[in-house]
Amino acid sequence: MNKKNAVPYFGRRGLIFVLSSPSGAGKTTISRELLRLDDNLVMSVSTTTRPKRAGETEGVDYNFVDDKTFERMTAGAEFLEHAHVFGYHYGTPRAPVETALQAGTDVLFDIDWQGTQQLATDENMGVDLVSVFILPPSTEELESRLNSRARDPDEVVRERMAKASGEMSHFLEYAYIIVNEDIDQSVARVQAILDGERSRTSRQVGLHDFVQGLRGVD
Amino acid sequence: MNKKNAVPYFGRRGLIFVLSSPSGAGKTTISRELLRLDDNLVMSVSTTTRPKRAGETEGVDYNFVDDKTFERMTAGAEFLEHAHVFGYHYGTPRAPVETALQAGTDVLFDIDWQGTQQLATDENMGVDLVSVFILPPSTEELESRLNSRARDPDEVVRERMAKASGEMSHFLEYAYIIVNEDIDQSVARVQAILDGERSRTSRQVGLHDFVQGLRGVD
Repeated sequence: MNKKNAVPYFGRRGLIFVLSSPSGAGKTTISRELLRLDDNLVMSVSTTTRPKRAGETEGVDYNFVDDKTFERMTAGAEFLEHAHVFGYHYGTPRAPVETALQAGTDVLFDIDWQGTQQLATDENMGVDLVSVFILPPSTEELESRLNSRARDPDEVVRERMAKASGEMSHFLEYAYIIVNEDIDQSVARVQAILDGERSRTSRQVGLHDFVQGLRGVD
Repeated sequence: MNKKNAVPYFGRRGLIFVLSSPSGAGKTTISRELLRLDDNLVMSVSTTTRPKRAGETEGVDYNFVDDKTFERMTAGAEFLEHAHVFGYHYGTPRAPVETALQAGTDVLFDIDWQGTQQLATDENMGVDLVSVFILPPSTEELESRLNSRARDPDEVVRERMAKASGEMSHFLEYAYIIVNEDIDQSVARVQAILDGERSRTSRQVGLHDFVQGLRGVD
């Protein structure tokens, strides 16, 4: 528990904290910093059918499953959101997220607009959702970050820019928006959004009884 | 301008930041600290028909007017919210608040649940409203704060407790809730709510054009 955010008087339901952005806008760095600084936030671990890469750990980076298992999980509505990207399936299992939320732990999601739409329209999870979109400060900055990632052919970079443009076209579907010019400032802003949302009246559990007690009413 | 919260890429409409609480919960101290720490927040100055007290300054503490002027202003819908308390009228003039919001300045309101309801249902101001309710940690604490205020007769204290109970019964009408046990922690929480709300997508002006520019679309 993050002592700073502990409210001993009543419980709190955790929230689903979604960060989306075009790749190259700094989302991964911001996520890592948030997880490092905030003791009450955990990362959602996705399930995927893509092969494990060197250095990845089962259950930490991903849950690696075969196509059959993924199909069975999809049919059983075990995913909060799932997508098919570059020939592989990715999905977020529902059960561990629900367990975390009930325990008052907040869950960080690093997903795109398609995943966010699935979460936002989920009949059980929509009220828990807090969505933040991170924008780059300029096209030049975005291009330079996409180029510096690897020495990729121009065509690949152009494809990434087109994907970034498509992602950014969905900015209005997010409750909050951040322009990531300075990483420390952006982390502070995202942390304020998270901390503020933790104080939402609708997330507190047992508040009615607490206030009745204050008022001297049984 | 609070540099911390400056977003140079597009404008932002200010927000109406309402703090309500039963008296004795620490709201005045929290308000004073917020105003001291935050350069982009100003206090709304109310208009009242009650006589000026020693030490009060016209235009800073209140705008002091006579009954006739107040009635004329009410009839002209010049108030965002107004109330009749202990024989005197109090009201918030609409024009200076609208000017501040358009300039991107946030306005702090220290009002009760009745004033908050009027703001929340105002056809122009409802979207700008961010409301926070501050609770005391316990009835004992509330009683002791109400008693230590002045050496008032028991009847007056009982009346204040009844008023506090009535105020607290409206907690669910507020978007955010804080239990004020430690003043520094409470100020930090309220500041996080304010900072978080400043990043709301819906408050940004010119965001569409900025994103179109990033996407390379005219």
